[in-house]
Amino acid sequence: MKTHWFNWLRIAAAALIAISWTAPGVAQEPLPSWNDTSPKKAIVAFVERVTKQGSPDFVPAAERIATFDNDGTLWAEQPIYFQLVFAFDRVKVLAPQHPEWVTMEPFASLLKGDLKGALAGGEPAIFQLVTVTHSGMTTDEFEKIVGDWIATARHPTTGRLYTEMVYQPMLELLAYLRANGFKTFVSGGGIDFIRVFAERVYGIPPEQIVGSSGKLKFELQDGRPLLMKLPELNFNDDKAGKPVAIQMHIGRHPIAAFGNSDGDLQMLEWARQGAGVRFALVVHHTDAEREWAYDRNSSVGRLDKGLDAAQAEGWTVVDMKNDWKTIFPFGSR
Amino acid sequence: MKTHWFNWLRIAAAALIAISWTAPGVAQEPLPSWNDTSPKKAIVAFVERVTKQGSPDFVPAAERIATFDNDGTLWAEQPIYFQLVFAFDRVKVLAPQHPEWVTMEPFASLLKGDLKGALAGGEPAIFQLVTVTHSGMTTDEFEKIVGDWIATARHPTTGRLYTEMVYQPMLELLAYLRANGFKTFVSGGGIDFIRVFAERVYGIPPEQIVGSSGKLKFELQDGRPLLMKLPELNFNDDKAGKPVAIQMHIGRHPIAAFGNSDGDLQMLEWARQGAGVRFALVVHHTDAEREWAYDRNSSVGRLDKGLDAAQAEGWTVVDMKNDWKTIFPFGSR
Repeated sequence: MKTHWFNWLRIAAAALIAISWTAPGVAQEPLPSWNDTSPKKAIVAFVERVTKQGSPDFVPAAERIATFDNDGTLWAEQPIYFQLVFAFDRVKVLAPQHPEWVTMEPFASLLKGDLKGALAGGEPAIFQLVTVTHSGMTTDEFEKIVGDWIATARHPTTGRLYTEMVYQPMLELLAYLRANGFKTFVSGGGIDFIRVFAERVYGIPPEQIVGSSGKLKFELQDGRPLLMKLPELNFNDDKAGKPVAIQMHIGRHPIAAFGNSDGDLQMLEWARQGAGVRFALVVHHTDAEREWAYDRNSSVGRLDKGLDAAQAEGWTVVDMKNDWKTIFPFGSR
Repeated sequence: MKTHWFNWLRIAAAALIAISWTAPGVAQEPLPSWNDTSPKKAIVAFVERVTKQGSPDFVPAAERIATFDNDGTLWAEQPIYFQLVFAFDRVKVLAPQHPEWVTMEPFASLLKGDLKGALAGGEPAIFQLVTVTHSGMTTDEFEKIVGDWIATARHPTTGRLYTEMVYQPMLELLAYLRANGFKTFVSGGGIDFIRVFAERVYGIPPEQIVGSSGKLKFELQDGRPLLMKLPELNFNDDKAGKPVAIQMHIGRHPIAAFGNSDGDLQMLEWARQGAGVRFALVVHHTDAEREWAYDRNSSVGRLDKGLDAAQAEGWTVVDMKNDWKTIFPFGSR
């Protein structure tokens, strides 16, 4: 009898939750930092179509997978990707242990404060800077290093913590999707860098972060197991690597994807693939006043082919300046 | 007012669910297929310690990560790993397209029905058989092939579907852990093979399957994006690879791990690492009547170092014969 009573309570409780989440006019207006322009309308229309029981476009909750790029989509990326700033800061911290860096590029230029010189070596130079600062320690040690940095480092022009440089409308979008049964993932950036703050800042747990990674090695040190970060690339979660990483990690087609640069193009194409209603959105950085304005000619977060594809395929494009009431949780930069 | 009313309902509903799940003596007795021997007691004691609010051993739900090996831990693995049977069956299906296999080992022996001859080449031969049968198609095509096979193929001695050859006590354990806020993961076997049935059979969604994988390549065919499975190993989720795969995929230390062979040893060690209460369990195949009895000298699912480690470190060892009332959902083999 007791069991029946509690089963009944459980069913009743579940029903009440369902009612309170879906009752029209009751829930808070979604996406308050979005203007009532076409992107917001497109998002809400998409979510309503796939969540409406009995509709031909209905998607079961388990299949409501949404993937988000990080840099330039969930947080800012100017004047340079924040994870690179972390790498540069680490080079300075580690320099005393590496006297050879004084004459060795790209370290020498970086240590002299000549960022342009340091980056003159292009991608190989950047790869070298990232590799030396992201290896040679255990995964636990790296987590601690990133945690300390992210808690204190300040953005060069706004003076804000990097975790404050997130887009308020996108935080609302993440929450709105989750309230509608979606599972939200980040795909992009360094997996063990983003995991340090994503749960607290985006509400996305470590197991829902897909990203670039270095190789790891399991070792026993004095009988204690640990994972060493090796100076070797494991996977580059960018461009054609994004759908690969998403499939490996999630094993389902996303039905919605959100990006801002050419590096996200294949992820957006992949999300659009398959039967049923799909959603692809591009954040276009158009607000030089409140954030930054850049697209086809930017070396950071270039949006060129992606903009063409969005127009050709009818993807939703967010014009930051016109579509977002607020940019950052603290207002504008 | 309406909002308040619904918020109140939601809080009340959540409270009712919490009560109905935790009220002592009310919930169904957990793990009904487990005898009241030490493994069941150890599992229940562990779960109660980490879920008791205010206890020094309390672990927040988000950190209750449990990882399970698949072959020999969640389903049987005798007389040979089931995914290998799938590969062998596929070789037979594909043989007409590969006339060269008639004289080429290990295919020639396999096609003549000489399994021992086919496996004489050891791991390289097995790798070759797996590679040709797990590549050269899209991820969607592979999912369909596995789905068709798993729905119809029968175990050679029991005549049962492979998805019936799962351990009833482990299904109950998965459900019990999830009812206590754990997130359950599979780590082991081929990631895109296991994903096909894990949600239906284990209640574990694709994104919570960690496993071995081949490389994938993103392609556009007639403008349609797809992922091709390449004949190249991406990651071998076994032995020292298991903690690596778990860290890459989950990004948190598991607090509980479940295995049955030496291939799981490092995963079990990894789960035991770190502060707080941890749990490691080894399924020991001791029941020649109802299942199979094998350990230190078996070529399939060898448990040698793992058994020593379990004894030395005080891990929980399930003696299948004495600790499990039922083996398979349908009874015994």
